[in-house]
Amino acid sequence: MELSKNKIKLIKSLDQKKQRLKHQLFVAEGKKVVQELLTSSLECEALFVTKEMELLFENESYAVITELDLKKITSLKSPNGVLALFKIPAAQQVKTEGLIVALDAINDPGNLGTIIRLCDWFGVEQLVCSENTVDCFNSKVVQSTMGSLSRVSIVYLPLAEYLQNTDLSIFCADMEGQNVYQSELPSRGILVMGNEANGVSEEIENLCTDKIMIPRFGKVQETESLNVATATAILLSEFQRKNV
Amino acid sequence: MELSKNKIKLIKSLDQKKQRLKHQLFVAEGKKVVQELLTSSLECEALFVTKEMELLFENESYAVITELDLKKITSLKSPNGVLALFKIPAAQQVKTEGLIVALDAINDPGNLGTIIRLCDWFGVEQLVCSENTVDCFNSKVVQSTMGSLSRVSIVYLPLAEYLQNTDLSIFCADMEGQNVYQSELPSRGILVMGNEANGVSEEIENLCTDKIMIPRFGKVQETESLNVATATAILLSEFQRKNV
Repeated sequence: MELSKNKIKLIKSLDQKKQRLKHQLFVAEGKKVVQELLTSSLECEALFVTKEMELLFENESYAVITELDLKKITSLKSPNGVLALFKIPAAQQVKTEGLIVALDAINDPGNLGTIIRLCDWFGVEQLVCSENTVDCFNSKVVQSTMGSLSRVSIVYLPLAEYLQNTDLSIFCADMEGQNVYQSELPSRGILVMGNEANGVSEEIENLCTDKIMIPRFGKVQETESLNVATATAILLSEFQRKNV
Repeated sequence: MELSKNKIKLIKSLDQKKQRLKHQLFVAEGKKVVQELLTSSLECEALFVTKEMELLFENESYAVITELDLKKITSLKSPNGVLALFKIPAAQQVKTEGLIVALDAINDPGNLGTIIRLCDWFGVEQLVCSENTVDCFNSKVVQSTMGSLSRVSIVYLPLAEYLQNTDLSIFCADMEGQNVYQSELPSRGILVMGNEANGVSEEIENLCTDKIMIPRFGKVQETESLNVATATAILLSEFQRKNV
């Protein structure tokens, strides 16, 4: 099948959040990511594969395209034979059970992708993002979640308002906070992680009920902090480690 | 000062590991990274700043260059006014005290940078890299370490040989291993982390004395693992948390 100009234009336009919202579609690329999403509850709108990949998807409905056409629609430097369009799932009610992760203005798609994977790993079912957090259907995020995207419920909302209206404990990382290794952490609550450069904004910090700190063991007490994805890894591990 | 063609050629050539080794120099860019490295034991060979950055470096010996010249030598998309050449430090003896992290074929510069930062945070003074691990003086690594590079001793060596000749316990992450949250971890030992796609190679795995596993809490038992940087964060936290 040759891709029409209009189709190519549509797919490329999905690089933009505005167009994703308009069409309610997002792009996933690569064998592994697409395969995982196909087995999820997400609805596949179109699946394009090159000749060599055809066998892998024989149980799906797909269109075979040329490498040349794939190059026209990919956002990867080295596309690897599979590109799919999925429908953006309908907004779900925010869950209140278990541990919830809330993100305040995370900018980097790789960081968001890593945090979604971490939520999936540590059994966090609800991720709440401030409206200025990078879009989870951005192709780089989809790529770096490696399929976890379908297993974590993600909602974008006015974060301050959400936190004002919860009766859950709200945790944030703060170097003035209580040593996390000596804290008793509940199995329900909200863990807020902040922007890469500026941390949690003042407005959000004021809404937090508990400040926790990952101690630094290095000899030199430099100002440089852990990056947000590794800090999230350590904190989720601390919240969940008692539950093994 | 106008940069000579030869100088520009030299600096650009340092993108390549071979040239870095030949000249025993590496490039650091950006205010924060360069400032941190200037206060370290590393020797600065040359410091180039644009007019606007001059005041920040008034106690150093520097050359003022134009934005145009900076564009010719930077490896960043948006260079931010400072580029320095540092001497590659002389190889030091491998330390045997405390916890040592060993890397088996880590490919991604961002991952290596993050792991160096984690070592710095968690007080790991010695990082041992297999010879096929990405070079720590690669500009992307230097960038992502945010200055930690000078505080962790990094050595490249034949990893199997090194592990064969140690009497320290050698830990590696393995989903068949002992639950890390229930393991008693020593304060001395070697933690081996493996390649992004393939994990620890079979040869190295056979040399490990202890296999540890980060349990998965998510409901769906997918094959996808944590990425190497987040797994390192969690394991270093587990090794050190008793020492607070």
